[in-house]
Amino acid sequence: MILVGSGNMATNLAYAFRKAGVRIDCVYSHQLHHAEELALKVGVACYTDDLQNVNDVLKQDSSNQVVIYCLKDSVLPEVLSCIDAPDAIHLHTAGSMGITVFAGKNKPHCGVLYPFQTLSKERVLPFDNLPIFIEATNEADLLRIRHIAEQISTKVYLADSEIRKRLHLAGVFANNFSNCMYAIAAEILEPTGLSEEVLLSLIDETAAKVHTMPARRAQTGPAIRYDESIMNAHLQLLDDANLQDIYRAVSKNIHENQ
Amino acid sequence: MILVGSGNMATNLAYAFRKAGVRIDCVYSHQLHHAEELALKVGVACYTDDLQNVNDVLKQDSSNQVVIYCLKDSVLPEVLSCIDAPDAIHLHTAGSMGITVFAGKNKPHCGVLYPFQTLSKERVLPFDNLPIFIEATNEADLLRIRHIAEQISTKVYLADSEIRKRLHLAGVFANNFSNCMYAIAAEILEPTGLSEEVLLSLIDETAAKVHTMPARRAQTGPAIRYDESIMNAHLQLLDDANLQDIYRAVSKNIHENQ
Repeated sequence: MILVGSGNMATNLAYAFRKAGVRIDCVYSHQLHHAEELALKVGVACYTDDLQNVNDVLKQDSSNQVVIYCLKDSVLPEVLSCIDAPDAIHLHTAGSMGITVFAGKNKPHCGVLYPFQTLSKERVLPFDNLPIFIEATNEADLLRIRHIAEQISTKVYLADSEIRKRLHLAGVFANNFSNCMYAIAAEILEPTGLSEEVLLSLIDETAAKVHTMPARRAQTGPAIRYDESIMNAHLQLLDDANLQDIYRAVSKNIHENQ
Repeated sequence: MILVGSGNMATNLAYAFRKAGVRIDCVYSHQLHHAEELALKVGVACYTDDLQNVNDVLKQDSSNQVVIYCLKDSVLPEVLSCIDAPDAIHLHTAGSMGITVFAGKNKPHCGVLYPFQTLSKERVLPFDNLPIFIEATNEADLLRIRHIAEQISTKVYLADSEIRKRLHLAGVFANNFSNCMYAIAAEILEPTGLSEEVLLSLIDETAAKVHTMPARRAQTGPAIRYDESIMNAHLQLLDDANLQDIYRAVSKNIHENQ
């Protein structure tokens, strides 16, 4: 296996595959010290900032190689063009990128391995129960990709590029936007001098509750009953046009979808 | 102790005080079967839908009594007017209601006991580490209220009505609005046929992450870098004016507060 990238995704995948006993032959990053850092963490001897070195490694046993690209969407197409290994299987890991990114790149064996999680270098997560969505252009490759994904997770699902786009958007709401709600809550508390730690049991219970019932049924708060006296007091307290826009739009959604 | 109310808050407080060994003398609800249901659950002999019965119980030993009101904001003032026990201590539990609601109600010993949590009848929660915010109009009452609150929680904080209003608003974002983000995420997935369970590890990790770093630092996603090509694709996929409003307003907040 070759990891192209050394960021949040690459780091988490490196740990997950190492735990599964998969040998990682090389780590690439366009910044050598990042490649080195990840290689050292997971005990990989080869690291490089030169894609030609990756091609050299691939030449040794290309047909058994898996190349996993963990890159920003904007640089993926260019990097794909630089990797020359038509026998290897090439997988990208991006939620919002179609499988068509491989078209015209001389990569007949290609696909997607998309772990549905927010990942950080600093928080290496267990992958065992993490949903991984896979896609390929043919059945034989799909079988191989499923095998690769099942080495690190018990929850492997098929998802074509259209479904994956929806997953990515759902993830924006479930993760990016709910995290932003936490951040705004903490900022609302700032003038009180209370630590934002007082929010944690509420945040934890909000997440725990949707394990037992659908989120719409778990919904509470003044927006459900459209309690205008409370809502107007809240809008006044917010005192910021963007926060008021968020408050109004989310309250409307809660009220109209109960 | 007398519990006026039998809903989510009253149910959770009843269990918490019972666990702490506090005797509950009576449960009131304007619907008798609700009062009975809660009384049976926590082993209270007296339940009623008549506030005069509550007054009768209070007459027996008023000065040692604690009356806790767990009512909708809209009915609290009226119910307070019907309870005649100037020696007892009267506590409401509402986030958005000032302590001034007791003014003119012949209740010289009054205050607030506000558990900062989303509570349901169906999910009785441990109160031990749950933040409780208290307020009183004088030091002697505050001491008594602190003692009452500390029987059920180790995390008791002072918060005047202004601070409590901010807490309530922060809770709307941290709970109501983040839950709404989960609901929207599930609805985005609906056309794919994927179970909303695939969201749970992402939701859990989002909540877990803010135990280790401030939410603003945990923020990820296309809005941070204002990736217009992804954001425009998302807006197109949302295909609903309200969801697009939410998407734009929250993305703006994320982008401008990193």
